[in-house]
Amino acid sequence: MTEDIRSLIEAMPAPDEAAVASVRARAAQVLRPAGALARLDEVAVWLAGWQRTSRPRVEAPGAVVFLADHGVAVEGVSAYTAGVTEAMLRALRAGVATASAMARTIGATLGVVDVGVGRPTGNLAREPALSTTGFEECFAAGRRAVADLKTDLLVLGEMGISNTTSAAAVCAALFGGPAEEWVGRGTGIDDAGFARKVSVVETARRRIEEASEPLEVLRQVGGAELVALAGATLEARLRSIPVVLDGFVVTAALAALEVARPGALDHCLAGHCSGEPGHRLLLEKLGKVPLLDLGLRLGEGSGALAAVPLVKLAAASVTDVATFDEWGLHS
Amino acid sequence: MTEDIRSLIEAMPAPDEAAVASVRARAAQVLRPAGALARLDEVAVWLAGWQRTSRPRVEAPGAVVFLADHGVAVEGVSAYTAGVTEAMLRALRAGVATASAMARTIGATLGVVDVGVGRPTGNLAREPALSTTGFEECFAAGRRAVADLKTDLLVLGEMGISNTTSAAAVCAALFGGPAEEWVGRGTGIDDAGFARKVSVVETARRRIEEASEPLEVLRQVGGAELVALAGATLEARLRSIPVVLDGFVVTAALAALEVARPGALDHCLAGHCSGEPGHRLLLEKLGKVPLLDLGLRLGEGSGALAAVPLVKLAAASVTDVATFDEWGLHS
Repeated sequence: MTEDIRSLIEAMPAPDEAAVASVRARAAQVLRPAGALARLDEVAVWLAGWQRTSRPRVEAPGAVVFLADHGVAVEGVSAYTAGVTEAMLRALRAGVATASAMARTIGATLGVVDVGVGRPTGNLAREPALSTTGFEECFAAGRRAVADLKTDLLVLGEMGISNTTSAAAVCAALFGGPAEEWVGRGTGIDDAGFARKVSVVETARRRIEEASEPLEVLRQVGGAELVALAGATLEARLRSIPVVLDGFVVTAALAALEVARPGALDHCLAGHCSGEPGHRLLLEKLGKVPLLDLGLRLGEGSGALAAVPLVKLAAASVTDVATFDEWGLHS
Repeated sequence: MTEDIRSLIEAMPAPDEAAVASVRARAAQVLRPAGALARLDEVAVWLAGWQRTSRPRVEAPGAVVFLADHGVAVEGVSAYTAGVTEAMLRALRAGVATASAMARTIGATLGVVDVGVGRPTGNLAREPALSTTGFEECFAAGRRAVADLKTDLLVLGEMGISNTTSAAAVCAALFGGPAEEWVGRGTGIDDAGFARKVSVVETARRRIEEASEPLEVLRQVGGAELVALAGATLEARLRSIPVVLDGFVVTAALAALEVARPGALDHCLAGHCSGEPGHRLLLEKLGKVPLLDLGLRLGEGSGALAAVPLVKLAAASVTDVATFDEWGLHS
């Protein structure tokens, strides 16, 4: 199926090492003690490499939220009914959702992309979430959403009732370990719902025992918006657009790329560690240290949106601060 | 000396409990699972109480950086010479320092207030840093800087070569414990400098063993900018302006207020935990959990400036998001 996608993943570009070296050198020469901005200097260097410039900047952050419904919702794994996905799609389009308010506050555009609202995937506990064609269409939709965007920093978000179950199933299949470690309370299920969620993840994992290929795992137990997120991330890499990761669902979707090709997420920064417990474990598996750790567990790209100003500040603190030499001092 | 100041501290206003209750209720009704924004919802509630409004907002963040020189610099406790304070004063005024770039990036005004650059305090190892008159002048300068400001969220910053030694001495005198726990590497001193710094803090603490009054501790072993910071924080409380705390020096200066009157810093949010090790300990003593933990160790208000967008996002995420009822859904 996905031969084209596999070739693209193999051909992912590396960062611009000259830009990396230039910004690393400048960060050591600006008007402050060397290393005083710690992690923020590292973020500026990372941004330079993927923006391919020695003057990194965030002037046009762009967020895209993908939404879809999930067949697995019939298993009673969420505190909300599937209809809430459609209500949130309308709220996001009307600009009254949390991500809408956040994007306006930080000056980001917000794209809202329906990849399956009201058209649930297969129930991942019993059957593949997506057909091969469905997978390819969702992946292409994700790529298209980014290709259409003018941005220098991409935020990816998602919304879809039951999609933390998909995320947990993807992680359990990719990384192993007890299902309990990957399953969380999502929007706030009770103990019985939690037990059902664990059981669904175990069942899904057993169903696809034979599937060792990460993109096949994503097709089998992911969901439409998860696949679109993977496509969007690949497209961003091809277009030199750095990405800020949101929470558990986004990171789980993209983990399939990283397992398929180590380094595939090097252009992605962990914006936030979610309150959903599987996310901390997943970030550790990926070797990513989040900028924020505030316990958010909303999705919609909210954790990543909250981290965007830090990336912007990191860039400005190297690009817009004088060096000791420029200021007539010697460091 | 400071009878007026003591009376003002005693008369500090409480938060607006009606605004607190209103925003807490709204946060539970907006279009997301209850509690999904976790810490950010708490920040919005805190902001409402101190801004005294049920629609908290950050539209005009204002930063003020106080600068001064320190007599204790002659003890060789810094990697930089005292002249650097004056160079940074010029850089901040010219808009080419890190705080300048950060303030522009987040849309904050930046006031730069010289309370003793080139006019060092007494050497705190041997004599009071400030006379009683000097203390009162610096405290008044801090109050004035805030009284002149139109802002809905105050960021306080400082710069002064050797001032992490003052901060460590203040903390050691206020809270006890080994000097080594309060002393850090500041701008980057070597092992011998670190040992001198520990010794200076011990000497200063012994010198003022009799001083049990927190404001007297600040006069004896603080510094001009530390006293101004305390004055600014008191003025902000009187004017219903919430404050975001920066790093070790700012927090140490204000700790004197909190020890003088528990609750005096309730209108202050910990923006950041500094890489200076005494800061983590100090925040624990004050019961403050920082929003950011990125290892910054610059001063200039940088850690607090980095946290301002989160406060702004917290407010917008309650104030500007529809409730389930407004959106025709039931939570």
